[in-house]
Amino acid sequence: MPEKITVAIDAMGGDHAPQQNIHGAMQALRKAKDNLRIILVGNVDKIRPHINDQPKNILLKHTSDVIRMNEHPVRSVKKKTDSSLVVAATMVKEGEADAFVSAGNTGAVTAAGLLIIKRIKGIDRPAIATMFPTRRGFSLILDAGANADCRAENLVEFAKMGSIYLHHMSGKNKPSVGLLNIGEESSKGNMLYLRAHELLRKTDLNFYGNVEGRDLPLGTSDIVVCDGFTGNIALKLMEGVSDSVFKEIKKEISKSFRGRLGATFLLSSLKKLRKRLNPENYGGSPLLGIDGVGVIAHGSSSPTAIANAVLAAAMAVELKVVDGISEQIK
Amino acid sequence: MPEKITVAIDAMGGDHAPQQNIHGAMQALRKAKDNLRIILVGNVDKIRPHINDQPKNILLKHTSDVIRMNEHPVRSVKKKTDSSLVVAATMVKEGEADAFVSAGNTGAVTAAGLLIIKRIKGIDRPAIATMFPTRRGFSLILDAGANADCRAENLVEFAKMGSIYLHHMSGKNKPSVGLLNIGEESSKGNMLYLRAHELLRKTDLNFYGNVEGRDLPLGTSDIVVCDGFTGNIALKLMEGVSDSVFKEIKKEISKSFRGRLGATFLLSSLKKLRKRLNPENYGGSPLLGIDGVGVIAHGSSSPTAIANAVLAAAMAVELKVVDGISEQIK
Repeated sequence: MPEKITVAIDAMGGDHAPQQNIHGAMQALRKAKDNLRIILVGNVDKIRPHINDQPKNILLKHTSDVIRMNEHPVRSVKKKTDSSLVVAATMVKEGEADAFVSAGNTGAVTAAGLLIIKRIKGIDRPAIATMFPTRRGFSLILDAGANADCRAENLVEFAKMGSIYLHHMSGKNKPSVGLLNIGEESSKGNMLYLRAHELLRKTDLNFYGNVEGRDLPLGTSDIVVCDGFTGNIALKLMEGVSDSVFKEIKKEISKSFRGRLGATFLLSSLKKLRKRLNPENYGGSPLLGIDGVGVIAHGSSSPTAIANAVLAAAMAVELKVVDGISEQIK
Repeated sequence: MPEKITVAIDAMGGDHAPQQNIHGAMQALRKAKDNLRIILVGNVDKIRPHINDQPKNILLKHTSDVIRMNEHPVRSVKKKTDSSLVVAATMVKEGEADAFVSAGNTGAVTAAGLLIIKRIKGIDRPAIATMFPTRRGFSLILDAGANADCRAENLVEFAKMGSIYLHHMSGKNKPSVGLLNIGEESSKGNMLYLRAHELLRKTDLNFYGNVEGRDLPLGTSDIVVCDGFTGNIALKLMEGVSDSVFKEIKKEISKSFRGRLGATFLLSSLKKLRKRLNPENYGGSPLLGIDGVGVIAHGSSSPTAIANAVLAAAMAVELKVVDGISEQIK
């Protein structure tokens, strides 16, 4: 029997903390059977009311402080040493946990990864890698927001880390890497992307070439590489547009279909479709390039989103993603 | 009675040229009644078969050459002096037409605007301004792709031009200007956007502050300002996601609703909704900042999209948008 994997959850991070985080933790434990142990890191007085009886495989670690969503990432991580986020990351650094998960301030989670767990040797810039649903299944986009300003060399590093991650997690050999850009031709792009294209072509990655905005929902490439500014805007845009279209359609159905046979049935199948297209179900976003497993969940994470992030973190530990990156980057 | 407005159409530009362009021209004439005159610029041997009898208010201008979609913008505009695009732009420069419309190579259309019609005095970088549908109506995003690399000062210029344009075209006083960014707080963004935020705050524009990817489909601000790289990716992404979601829903309805009462009815109301959300129906994208009216239509424009671009061009002429920008930029 394999050893239990321990995941520390920042119980206080996120818009619906601690309740949804705790429900998510319990959902993850139910799904993982007996191979997972969770440490809920946070204010125990606020955590306990949400736990009926002390369930198996859940530990509590008390911390008094919290980093809020709008606090300065680096300053708050340096100052708030007894915050749930900093303590969760420190547990990974000191081997008390195998991974940590947080739905808190993304910038602070990234800063905690960088300052506490630190970078893998040879990595210049860790990146946030996010799965998003496509018509073919899903793709991985990185950087989703850790680095607002990038050099072309960083984009190549993201491509390498993304390839290794996806290979480990999905078994796919040589996943295809697309460079997000404003045209298919290699002559398209701004200075950063023109140079990145040139560099990517010289690697031994499975470089697909440029992919455009409209290619993302189609799943043209397994991996989409971009700077963190563009990636963050693209992800939020995909969520927003999908959300808006669903709402408009629901309105249309309710309006023109009221009382008609099958309206309820149709709305329920739309709901299923929407669930499939919801990024929440794709397991959180690992911060790749740090010397440990850290997974960022959406600030408005539901229990299911938290559970999926925890399970993705456990899987990354089990499949030794960090070792994989470390060995191939050398 | 007002004088007729003359719009030169690059009949050979775009994926479905010349047929769809010609049908679009005729559609525009039907809608504009007797106030519009159109010059179809292109190879008359290829244009004539699509015109049944010479309709009123359509003139032909023969050109022998065409700039293809993948040609180098500046080089092709300089070399192909008898191309439909260059001749159409030249007609505006020389006062033979009041505006030109092209569904051809966007880079080349921009280059033609810059090199032939030239910039308005005081404008550093013309920008492509595109209307996109939102849940509230529509917003204007610029730059949609004319400038892949920008300085913060350019973004401020885009904000000014967009405000003047929207004020002229919609009558809205002091339209709100949002800066596309990765967070609402002024501390968010990359170096370019941090600086642009600072500069925009000091203008007398109605600056809303930062808007995120998820705000775009909601219509949080009337105008969205960004560099041309980000804007182009955002627009193509919005189109792509909306398209994909509609296709998935259609599949779902057809699958689970086959033969059921009302399926046809529902599919037809979805079609109407999709039409409303289709950017094609929002009238092409003016190249703001050049000393004349030039409107860029989508490469895959339908006749309706061409007609709307022509009508938007005529409206910009009638409402003296170029004079408006010129006076307020001084």
